[in-house]
Amino acid sequence: MISQTVEYALRAIVTIAQREGRPSTAREIAELTRVPSPYLSKLMQVLVRGGLVNSQRGLHGGFVLTKDPRELTIWDVVDVVEPIKRILECPLGIRSHGSSLCLLHARLDKALETIETMFRQTTVAELLSQPGSSTPLCEEQKTFNLDGPGVGPHGHAKARPKK
Amino acid sequence: MISQTVEYALRAIVTIAQREGRPSTAREIAELTRVPSPYLSKLMQVLVRGGLVNSQRGLHGGFVLTKDPRELTIWDVVDVVEPIKRILECPLGIRSHGSSLCLLHARLDKALETIETMFRQTTVAELLSQPGSSTPLCEEQKTFNLDGPGVGPHGHAKARPKK
Repeated sequence: MISQTVEYALRAIVTIAQREGRPSTAREIAELTRVPSPYLSKLMQVLVRGGLVNSQRGLHGGFVLTKDPRELTIWDVVDVVEPIKRILECPLGIRSHGSSLCLLHARLDKALETIETMFRQTTVAELLSQPGSSTPLCEEQKTFNLDGPGVGPHGHAKARPKK
Repeated sequence: MISQTVEYALRAIVTIAQREGRPSTAREIAELTRVPSPYLSKLMQVLVRGGLVNSQRGLHGGFVLTKDPRELTIWDVVDVVEPIKRILECPLGIRSHGSSLCLLHARLDKALETIETMFRQTTVAELLSQPGSSTPLCEEQKTFNLDGPGVGPHGHAKARPKK
């Protein structure tokens, strides 16, 4: 129901947002998100074309968000990558039917509307780890787990470039 | 987000349920749901294999539901056709991470959980038209619209076999 492409895009956006404005290279994003590089590269093009991400060239270049993560929502990302198609007209393709849906389609659209609301209300900033930590994704937490006892929940500097 | 296959399957189930136990032929279902016949045939096989529908042979044979529509939910149909994959473990594939999700994946799974709840709480009976009517789908309502004024909201007997 949430496609792999959408999920990968959200991983990438969260990973870039976590860098707080410092550019992330495609290689860094691919490593941190565990998204295969060719797949990630295509996805970054979609995010750039969709206006969510800027690509900065040069020695310290890379991808940055075009918006403050507090103003970027899950919905914005989904809408660029794989827009949710609400059922606003009869899907049986009858134009004359207009917007008066049967019970089935009204109920299905209600579910889509609920998801839309949830995604619109969740900003990327809310998905980032707490200040001082760098664990936006499950994988990062896993790195912590592998570090074994004695290391704090955000103590996996070896997996991430130091700030 | 709700695939065409799932939507078609729900159309078919609602259409069969509307017949109140009388078998529906594949041709009838295809016509009423406006699902292309080859697609519908494959879908019916999935629904039979999934235990939602029985195929009765013979002169007055056809498809019937195996359950009372009051006990069959949208969830049951979705679960047979295209199960919703909840995010119960880290999707980055780290077994050691277990079920402790990062904020991103926890939020996405929350959305899936909400849909699951909505679908589990909606029975097929709730999607049927009122007693005496036979308008389970948008298309049927459209048929009414084309009938023009003077015909009641359920007065499209020509589109459906009489009871």
